[in-house]
Amino acid sequence: MTGRFLSLEGGEGAGKSTQVRALAATIEARGATVVVTREPGGSEGAEAIRSLLMHGEVSRWDARAEALLFAAARADHVEKVIRPALAAGHWVISDRYLDSTRAYQGLAGGIDDAAIMALHAFGSGGLLPDRTIVLDLSVQEGARRAALRDQGFTDRFARRGEDFHHRVAEAFRSFAEREPARVRIVDAARPPEAVTAAILVELADLLP
Amino acid sequence: MTGRFLSLEGGEGAGKSTQVRALAATIEARGATVVVTREPGGSEGAEAIRSLLMHGEVSRWDARAEALLFAAARADHVEKVIRPALAAGHWVISDRYLDSTRAYQGLAGGIDDAAIMALHAFGSGGLLPDRTIVLDLSVQEGARRAALRDQGFTDRFARRGEDFHHRVAEAFRSFAEREPARVRIVDAARPPEAVTAAILVELADLLP
Repeated sequence: MTGRFLSLEGGEGAGKSTQVRALAATIEARGATVVVTREPGGSEGAEAIRSLLMHGEVSRWDARAEALLFAAARADHVEKVIRPALAAGHWVISDRYLDSTRAYQGLAGGIDDAAIMALHAFGSGGLLPDRTIVLDLSVQEGARRAALRDQGFTDRFARRGEDFHHRVAEAFRSFAEREPARVRIVDAARPPEAVTAAILVELADLLP
Repeated sequence: MTGRFLSLEGGEGAGKSTQVRALAATIEARGATVVVTREPGGSEGAEAIRSLLMHGEVSRWDARAEALLFAAARADHVEKVIRPALAAGHWVISDRYLDSTRAYQGLAGGIDDAAIMALHAFGSGGLLPDRTIVLDLSVQEGARRAALRDQGFTDRFARRGEDFHHRVAEAFRSFAEREPARVRIVDAARPPEAVTAAILVELADLLP
């Protein structure tokens, strides 16, 4: 069996972690081995970079240094975890991947998409998921859910203003418009089971 | 008075730190303010990245992740320390800068020089020193001096084999051949005072 590479994307509180777990259980029940991972992080080196990225003041890194750190973390993650898992025939499901950098540092952060893609080509050989699911949820509802979940803890990205998060949501929608074969939007405002079912519809041609 | 940006480069044990201090004292004695800094590091964020780069196994990062981490550290260093110092009219002397990445990750590490220059253009606007001094010393003599100095402690780069360090030395010489206006070779096998005097000759047209 050949493994596939899936990523889940979306703003804060959209339910990515919940859906990654549900998806992994569904695919494992069909007989595949699933490696669940996340970004930033997912490998020992990338998790060390993650702690530099997520903590401290919003202004700790400017957008360019931040984009380079994400590219470095992703290079390590792809080299040490994702490519070996795919080579072994496993499925890989990543909670965030390249499209988060394109949305947060790119369209919302002011870095050219072409520059981010060039860093990705350099660091990770341009590896793209076979399919990317964007969990679409209003910024207000996402913030409400994230606040319930995080109980006051927020990282450097969650602390940015509402306008920033609107640009992130708009960026994810634009990727689905421009790359419809890879990127699919799923309405995340429904109960978790309904969202899982909608994701499985978008993966029907890939599932074992 | 307008500040200038100088970098000192060379292999392990070539005497860069000693010469940076001597040079700073000489330039300050002529009435300029000098900011002494180093790479990797030199700013709060870049020093945090430095600790990821210098410690752990030689294989901790592959050459591409390493090049991206150096570019991220340099972007932070340039933005937070070097550009503000130059804008204030100060001199900046950096113990290592871009040419170390071109030598260690580039010619000795297998990454295309054009790719490293593209990362530098993205992260740091392509900022180059007004002059770069390469302290040239045989790999054997450099290793002997570094061993005396470090007393058994070696970082991830010093621990690479002699062949790697020969390629680094060759890389620095090639930069001086290709960019003679910016990069100057100084023989570092002599006593420190003679090396300082030779560096000052190479900076004569810039000094206050």
